[in-house]
Amino acid sequence: MAVVSVKQALSGKLDAGSTVTVRGWVRTRRDSKAGLSFVNVTDGSCFDPIQAVVPATLANYDSEVKHLTAGAGVIVSGTLVASQGKGQTFELQAYEVTVTGFVDDPETYPIQPKQHTMEFLREVAHLRPRTNLFGAVTRVRHTMMTAIHRHLTEQGFFWINTPIITTSDAEGAGDMFRLSTLDLANLPRDDKGKIDFRKDFFGREAFLTVSGQLNVEAYALAMSKVYTFGPTFRAENSNTPRHLAEFWMVEPEIAFADLADDADCAEAFLKAIFKAVLDERPDDMAFFAERVQPDAISRMEAFIAKPFERIDYTDAIAILQKSGQKFEYPVAWGIDLQTEHERYLAEKHIGRPVVVMNYPEAIKAFYMRLNDDEKTVAAMDVLAPGIGEIIGGSQREERLDYLDRRMVQFGLDPAAYGWYR
Amino acid sequence: MAVVSVKQALSGKLDAGSTVTVRGWVRTRRDSKAGLSFVNVTDGSCFDPIQAVVPATLANYDSEVKHLTAGAGVIVSGTLVASQGKGQTFELQAYEVTVTGFVDDPETYPIQPKQHTMEFLREVAHLRPRTNLFGAVTRVRHTMMTAIHRHLTEQGFFWINTPIITTSDAEGAGDMFRLSTLDLANLPRDDKGKIDFRKDFFGREAFLTVSGQLNVEAYALAMSKVYTFGPTFRAENSNTPRHLAEFWMVEPEIAFADLADDADCAEAFLKAIFKAVLDERPDDMAFFAERVQPDAISRMEAFIAKPFERIDYTDAIAILQKSGQKFEYPVAWGIDLQTEHERYLAEKHIGRPVVVMNYPEAIKAFYMRLNDDEKTVAAMDVLAPGIGEIIGGSQREERLDYLDRRMVQFGLDPAAYGWYR
Repeated sequence: MAVVSVKQALSGKLDAGSTVTVRGWVRTRRDSKAGLSFVNVTDGSCFDPIQAVVPATLANYDSEVKHLTAGAGVIVSGTLVASQGKGQTFELQAYEVTVTGFVDDPETYPIQPKQHTMEFLREVAHLRPRTNLFGAVTRVRHTMMTAIHRHLTEQGFFWINTPIITTSDAEGAGDMFRLSTLDLANLPRDDKGKIDFRKDFFGREAFLTVSGQLNVEAYALAMSKVYTFGPTFRAENSNTPRHLAEFWMVEPEIAFADLADDADCAEAFLKAIFKAVLDERPDDMAFFAERVQPDAISRMEAFIAKPFERIDYTDAIAILQKSGQKFEYPVAWGIDLQTEHERYLAEKHIGRPVVVMNYPEAIKAFYMRLNDDEKTVAAMDVLAPGIGEIIGGSQREERLDYLDRRMVQFGLDPAAYGWYR
Repeated sequence: MAVVSVKQALSGKLDAGSTVTVRGWVRTRRDSKAGLSFVNVTDGSCFDPIQAVVPATLANYDSEVKHLTAGAGVIVSGTLVASQGKGQTFELQAYEVTVTGFVDDPETYPIQPKQHTMEFLREVAHLRPRTNLFGAVTRVRHTMMTAIHRHLTEQGFFWINTPIITTSDAEGAGDMFRLSTLDLANLPRDDKGKIDFRKDFFGREAFLTVSGQLNVEAYALAMSKVYTFGPTFRAENSNTPRHLAEFWMVEPEIAFADLADDADCAEAFLKAIFKAVLDERPDDMAFFAERVQPDAISRMEAFIAKPFERIDYTDAIAILQKSGQKFEYPVAWGIDLQTEHERYLAEKHIGRPVVVMNYPEAIKAFYMRLNDDEKTVAAMDVLAPGIGEIIGGSQREERLDYLDRRMVQFGLDPAAYGWYR
């Protein structure tokens, strides 16, 4: 007998009348007066559970099946039949139900078939993958990850693991986590009474890097198209939904590319990912649209339907100033755009994603290429409706004299970047 | 005119006579008395460079082309023609060569067209991606990564990001890096004079986790088949080629699986990856076989040709004891196998990969399922010729009373693992 996933059982690819075994966890049980029970079983392979119709004639019907509650582990063997129930294709006429685990106390089991708050689910992080919401998020994240690697591979990119542990703190020491194996209660001291990092694991101070970009640029100058895709750590004490101490980030680098190539790369990247999610996860996206965000699907469809708009930062500022909108943060040439400005541009003015290009040099990083006006750099941000900035990038400065000047301007010591220059 | 990668130019998929542009870095330049130069250009897209045949009639021939040295950046446009040279399919009859960057001092440029030692390349880490060796390693790593995600996705697994920063040090504190934003020179103290971790970033002590396994098991009990694939950090002070402070690891977890399922999963996983490397990177593998390890290809072919052998740990010990081999570490039931034992079993005794199963319970982790003999656990290691252990796994203990007993036996406090139990 074939063990199949719930996804396979519901797919329509197995003939009605096949005998199969599914394994998973009970979501609900309903007993009928007709002498049978309907047990919904989920295994995470897709959004929908499968309904097992369990007859009272099974030997363990009274002793076990009638005690099944949400979260119990079961192995159900049965015959796949077309379902008469609304909204599902197949159900399972069970002839054997094995219980692999009951829930200790069904009264206090945290994950019930109802909506839970995010705050509550945070307290039961080990069980929240069993909710519809976290199941759907997990499947969509997986699809996005595979789409990222697949798209970049098709475009000729190579994935690079840049080092996460670094002994250089020059990139922005304030935001980095220090890494150490020293005993804090008993720190080694040198003969001047200072902490002796020669005794630490790496023989000197070590940190978690905030970006692999500079490292992966070295690979771009050998492999032409490369990217990092790994965890990033920031010790920023910002309690917003957009700041995390630990998150995953993708950083592509392309040799011989200018700002327009960079914007093309960003646009194709986002569209490939969103298209994959719409194609591969319609069940999960339908759930999001129904329960979380009504325009979850239509917004992504609009995202991939048309070319992104492209405008200059200077024009964006003029648009904002003429908009008549009241912004919390005042608008003037030279400011870094706030989320309210970004969303106005993408949502109200353009009505679809927009790439803003050529930002003032003073608000952008030292490695971005100075434009001929010497006031702006070849930087771009992709702004998306409902989100604001979703990708940031730039053409890198390739002229050594400009690069050195910009390093000094930003308080960095070119000598410490010998390998990068 | 189409910009193409060197891989595309050499692939045979473009018609001879096409005009194309390639961009990359000079590997070698040879001037002919016939009034032209042969410039080998590589862009990292494949192992081989493309040969550009540059006529002396170009305007910048004397001023620039004749000064090209290894590492210089160039953009070459020309006509693709079948090559008369040995070992290459196509070459480029150049009609335009743009130099994007010369090497400052060709005499001291570290990456020359010759073999460098690994120790030397470590000192020029930013330039070593330009060597044949690191280029080939980068492409093979990329192929392995894509094969890992593709294979597991096809098998119905979901990729999970388990947290890397943890506030629990119970899994093996000695081997973990501590993470902190406290000023070490001025540590905050509580009223008892102890370090006040309430002032630290997370409000308590934090570490880099050594494994996402326990966390991802919680996901397996909702999604059925899951895996982590991310960086792992170990503060082990072991200077061997098999110990790293930072490395990437794959950790699959399957619900409703026993030890045989686990071994099946490991075997299919390794074979899928090695098959992808042989299929997709023949040029790089040929280089490894020629320059690094003569059996690089034949060993991988043998790896995927036959089913892995499976033997019991107890039988493996008997085989080693009867072998007549002299081992550095003496063999007796109860020992953890050393690399010399593992390689003898795989290379000499079996002659192909072998899965050793059911290890003594005292040398394996608390979460592994105790067998009925109460002396062994349902653990397995995959041993490979030339390597030794390449995968370790186990059936997890599902019986709460056994799990609690094993935790206490290993000095762990079950109360600290409430969420895992």
